[in-house]
Amino acid sequence: MARAVKVGLIGFGTIGAGVVKLLRAHRAEIAKRAGGSIDVVTIADLDTTTDRGVPVKPARLVPDAGAVLNDPAIDIVIELIGGYEPARRFVLTAIRNGKDVVTANKALLAVHGEEIVAEAEARGVRMGFEASVGGGIPILRTLKEGLAGDRTVALHGIVNGTCNHILTTMTREGRPFAEVLAEAQELGLAEADPAADIDGIDSAHKLTLLTTLAFGVRPRFKDIPTEGIRHVDAVDIAFARELGYTIKLLATAKDGKDGIEARVHPTMIPQGHLLADVSGNFNAIFVRGAALGPTMYYGQGAGSLPTATAVIADLIAATRDRAIGGAVRVPPWGVPQQALRALPIRRLTDLEGEYYLRFMALDRPGVLARIAGVLGKFEISIAAVIQRDRRAGTTVPVVIRTHRARERDLARALKAIDTLATVKGRPVAIRIEEQLG
Amino acid sequence: MARAVKVGLIGFGTIGAGVVKLLRAHRAEIAKRAGGSIDVVTIADLDTTTDRGVPVKPARLVPDAGAVLNDPAIDIVIELIGGYEPARRFVLTAIRNGKDVVTANKALLAVHGEEIVAEAEARGVRMGFEASVGGGIPILRTLKEGLAGDRTVALHGIVNGTCNHILTTMTREGRPFAEVLAEAQELGLAEADPAADIDGIDSAHKLTLLTTLAFGVRPRFKDIPTEGIRHVDAVDIAFARELGYTIKLLATAKDGKDGIEARVHPTMIPQGHLLADVSGNFNAIFVRGAALGPTMYYGQGAGSLPTATAVIADLIAATRDRAIGGAVRVPPWGVPQQALRALPIRRLTDLEGEYYLRFMALDRPGVLARIAGVLGKFEISIAAVIQRDRRAGTTVPVVIRTHRARERDLARALKAIDTLATVKGRPVAIRIEEQLG
Repeated sequence: MARAVKVGLIGFGTIGAGVVKLLRAHRAEIAKRAGGSIDVVTIADLDTTTDRGVPVKPARLVPDAGAVLNDPAIDIVIELIGGYEPARRFVLTAIRNGKDVVTANKALLAVHGEEIVAEAEARGVRMGFEASVGGGIPILRTLKEGLAGDRTVALHGIVNGTCNHILTTMTREGRPFAEVLAEAQELGLAEADPAADIDGIDSAHKLTLLTTLAFGVRPRFKDIPTEGIRHVDAVDIAFARELGYTIKLLATAKDGKDGIEARVHPTMIPQGHLLADVSGNFNAIFVRGAALGPTMYYGQGAGSLPTATAVIADLIAATRDRAIGGAVRVPPWGVPQQALRALPIRRLTDLEGEYYLRFMALDRPGVLARIAGVLGKFEISIAAVIQRDRRAGTTVPVVIRTHRARERDLARALKAIDTLATVKGRPVAIRIEEQLG
Repeated sequence: MARAVKVGLIGFGTIGAGVVKLLRAHRAEIAKRAGGSIDVVTIADLDTTTDRGVPVKPARLVPDAGAVLNDPAIDIVIELIGGYEPARRFVLTAIRNGKDVVTANKALLAVHGEEIVAEAEARGVRMGFEASVGGGIPILRTLKEGLAGDRTVALHGIVNGTCNHILTTMTREGRPFAEVLAEAQELGLAEADPAADIDGIDSAHKLTLLTTLAFGVRPRFKDIPTEGIRHVDAVDIAFARELGYTIKLLATAKDGKDGIEARVHPTMIPQGHLLADVSGNFNAIFVRGAALGPTMYYGQGAGSLPTATAVIADLIAATRDRAIGGAVRVPPWGVPQQALRALPIRRLTDLEGEYYLRFMALDRPGVLARIAGVLGKFEISIAAVIQRDRRAGTTVPVVIRTHRARERDLARALKAIDTLATVKGRPVAIRIEEQLG
């Protein structure tokens, strides 16, 4: 049995407290699994006074990250402060000091991942970031190890619990976005500043990492088309249901010869699909392999203890590696960084798909014919139409589900329809993913 | 980069052919992931002539397993012949010859696992058996590694694709068991001798392994109460639907202080639960962790290529281990065998649960009162009743959903009801799992 592994923790928030709590509660089992005990010896956080509900001792709590980063006795550094800086600086320092790093920081890795991994590979230290995607769902090690014998061709993820909670509540209760968001904030299910979640940024960070691990391509966060859920209207959720769909904020990625498809946006998926039943603040990642076909991974995507289990899984993996030898067993991206393919992310306008469209039109004869005429001119054919609520003098929704069409053509058609005098307000367009994976 | 790892394959059936096909199709990607190439050099099978749809060369195909087992150049032996003997002998020989072993053989490990793992630990070789449960779903490494930071408290699995296909078809089409089984056999979805599948044996083998990995307890296949789907009647599926349930062959395990709950039987689960939507020949394992809460893993539980991906994931893991050192990184059961707890499997009669009951009774006044009276006498209280189809002189179904009751009491009550003159045929009792996990 190996010597005890010494861990330093930077960031003593809810996840950090969960890590300390679980490491102690499951101490004996974890030592059995890891082949050695795992001890948090130093915790660094600017706030050294607030009670986190777990005793600091026998660790020490200090305000200075340097006490962790520069302590030669510390083998593994856990970074849980989030954001770009000073997290980037701390992680790079830890690596340069020869320490393994475990982090839950998707933003950092999505944006600075190549710089960090290059340094980790050069120094021969381990990088674990299981907690950065899907909370406690072991999806990253599944992509790096469990599915390593297959070639992944597509994946679809519900990877932001806040958005899924809001959309689920809107769907169940027919209430408007702003009201449900405010309630989620009161319940602690949405941040005071919810932008990163509801604008899809967090999902795009996670999709960046999923795409790199699934397809072996370089991370390209800034190229991922991202659209959040602010503009999802309860009306469209209701029409979606009528057409047999559920609206989810879906992170989608598909492998391709000349480019990768990777995008985050509200998506209508068939009601019968397993992903449609992933409700509340749960996450799920649906993966399609060339040989394996579909698999799905489901669980809590956030929260103190669920996320802490993922951090600890990384600690155990690093401890197991250390017990049998010095070298890094699995590179951070699953393959050496230099082996990643440099494929571009395809532009949305180059993609094809089916679309849900809603126009608010004056209720006059010939309106539908005019809209259909414009769509036809741009080679967009109509699969289904819903038109009702006839009330003279007011606008009524005209809902159209299209057949497969090019996004470029759709954009042009919507622009043209927007200029029709009988159509009021901005047209609504939501992508439909009929064949998931 | 490590030297090439040399692999010998025993059993060139559909999975074996899939392994050879995928190793060659994904050769470059696999080498990148594994840190070295993986080459099948010798294949042993009694049938050396049938075309498997994949070229044998550059491997050689021989009728004698000894050519694999005793070749000092071979690093890893894949056992894919299934069954107890000679698989047991081959695996033990491979281990004694210092070779890592990868197998899909759940029967072998469920029954002879302790003998085999003891030998593997003594000789310091790796044992991979990801393909033995859930086909291509990476559930075993998830339990050993991904969820290693948590304590698993319960799991529920749909782990036999044949049974799930039959039950799904019966549910969708309202057809009887025998007819659907015969059709499944024609379609190649059920074996010519389907007993191991439909009697729940295969599920119990898999549950044995899941239970050991999830709870760290010694494997106890022979003590697992097992009931198959032969007696599931289309009538009960219809009544289940009316009560809000779907019938699945569920492998259930729950951790406990004095004993483990582990059992395989037809189970009614709530229609809204994700597991209820796992249809056709798909598998899913629902796991509840103390800290993580529920997670679920879904995919194809059988088939040549899906299962082959799991075999290859084990080959890659072993190759990665070999690339960084000689020692075994993760013991076969996730913890050293001597660290497994020796907890008994609790007897069914000691358990409590809710039950669906159906009696065929003569349609006379007072029949329900009499049945209810007997149930009450044994302290079984009634939550719901369905009674209809009144036709004088014939028997009609009386369907009862009970509140929580002791299985021992229920058995006694059913015995007493069976003696009532107004009740014909054997009473039907199906367990309800209202709160999964």
